[in-house]
Amino acid sequence: MEYDVIILGYGPAGLSAAIYAKRYGLNVKVIGRDPGVIAETGEVENYLGIYPINGFELTQKYIQHVNALGVEIENDEITKIEKKEHTFVVNDKHKAKTIIYALGGTKRKLDLQEEKKFRGKGIAYCATCDAAFYKKKIVAVLGGGNSAFESVKILDKFADKIYLVHRRDQFKAHQKLIDQVKSLKNVEFVLNSVVTHVRGDNKVESIIVKDNNNKEKEIKVDGIFVEFGYEANTDLAVSIGVELKNNMINVKQDMSTNIDGFFAAGDCTNGSNVMWQLITAASEGAIAGKAVYDYLHK
Amino acid sequence: MEYDVIILGYGPAGLSAAIYAKRYGLNVKVIGRDPGVIAETGEVENYLGIYPINGFELTQKYIQHVNALGVEIENDEITKIEKKEHTFVVNDKHKAKTIIYALGGTKRKLDLQEEKKFRGKGIAYCATCDAAFYKKKIVAVLGGGNSAFESVKILDKFADKIYLVHRRDQFKAHQKLIDQVKSLKNVEFVLNSVVTHVRGDNKVESIIVKDNNNKEKEIKVDGIFVEFGYEANTDLAVSIGVELKNNMINVKQDMSTNIDGFFAAGDCTNGSNVMWQLITAASEGAIAGKAVYDYLHK
Repeated sequence: MEYDVIILGYGPAGLSAAIYAKRYGLNVKVIGRDPGVIAETGEVENYLGIYPINGFELTQKYIQHVNALGVEIENDEITKIEKKEHTFVVNDKHKAKTIIYALGGTKRKLDLQEEKKFRGKGIAYCATCDAAFYKKKIVAVLGGGNSAFESVKILDKFADKIYLVHRRDQFKAHQKLIDQVKSLKNVEFVLNSVVTHVRGDNKVESIIVKDNNNKEKEIKVDGIFVEFGYEANTDLAVSIGVELKNNMINVKQDMSTNIDGFFAAGDCTNGSNVMWQLITAASEGAIAGKAVYDYLHK
Repeated sequence: MEYDVIILGYGPAGLSAAIYAKRYGLNVKVIGRDPGVIAETGEVENYLGIYPINGFELTQKYIQHVNALGVEIENDEITKIEKKEHTFVVNDKHKAKTIIYALGGTKRKLDLQEEKKFRGKGIAYCATCDAAFYKKKIVAVLGGGNSAFESVKILDKFADKIYLVHRRDQFKAHQKLIDQVKSLKNVEFVLNSVVTHVRGDNKVESIIVKDNNNKEKEIKVDGIFVEFGYEANTDLAVSIGVELKNNMINVKQDMSTNIDGFFAAGDCTNGSNVMWQLITAASEGAIAGKAVYDYLHK
């Protein structure tokens, strides 16, 4: 069978798109591997109307909502998209008249040789998931945005000492978060500095940081949380000719792209002033859901 | 004192803006008269993550969220906005460096002479509020969009007979809503028709409808629900020179306007592909909150 729309990804953008497409009476399928970065987020304070909540619980609410409207989500990795005449084919088997591509972003890596060696042995990417392993330990959080500061707040409940290592002395994080972290007595800022090496035998034992004057020093740590933000997941879109702008899918106001019938929403796009927020992703999903309806009924 | 930002209106756009502005460490004031059209909405099915809920309860959740973050809402009619040098002055007393204008929209009226006479005596604008008054009565719902169809669904629980009067034979409403209403046995469609007169002594007793061929007929009804959608509330913005497009505040991608320091969000703007939805309004509020922070820190 051919669906009206296949939605790729079930983060906030994909699920909000599913709600709108379903309520417009479309035949909808959602496919994705996981709910995306939201499930790895700690406390969420900024999704209007749901407070307080953590990212994992919020994900559950999103999924329950969509299921309650009768939309099923297929848990599957998306490996291939093709366009044959007026039909999109996903993973060689699912067919649809349109696509809403909502595959979000991926956490940026540390990009050091030692990264692979120490992954899961002291290098982590999700404080919500792994903070509890660092009870009474010393950790370094790398980065200067919201995710770095939120990770410090989470880790502060467990670790004895937290270094916040950032390559600048200014931060992209919300001022409120910065103020909160500055008031924590176990946090030490290591600014204008980058990590050049990770040392240890079987697990992380220390990091080497280099400052603006190329002066290096070694800091003893048991763990490293890499919090460099996200990179838009665009590869599969690019594979069928979707155009990017600043490494994100270039969308018009109705979330359409340069490929007829192919829409995108959420963190993988350059819409919503590139906020990378739940509420903006959900909004883009809604817009894409309506746009698909309009496209199919024009 | 001078606030960093005064947010005008406390519907979803204004309150989401308040959350973001507050979390960015800004000194925020919210002023408004009421939560806008959302509080008059019946069941809300499309705000991702909160389901099922009605408009009034959702409004309460929004307000509670903002209050929990320490933002206070002043209940006051906004009657005047001025710009003096780099300061905005609201109602001759509240001062701020920036404005987020989120005054939403107002329900469109019937625009007949008899409208004033029968208001509250058979002409209504909010099925959620007034449906219960029409138990076992005959009503007409005027319009072809989501609000018209949602009103029919609400009224069906009370009224014995519902006429849906629409000037076209196609509808703007979601297909799901249309299908639901078509399956209701007490609903009769009166299409390609407009109401030209409302008759009655002290209260509505009948309507005169005219079809495409100028043929008129009288339909006995006890009540009329006017569901013609919304009109953006732009007067106060226009009073200080804010530019409109298609009768809505013309915003850029970051919700800024032609007036320096003046941002807008929600149903009063032409952003978000003009969806007039809760999720898009809340998203625009978030974008405006960030944009104000960026503006003040540039």
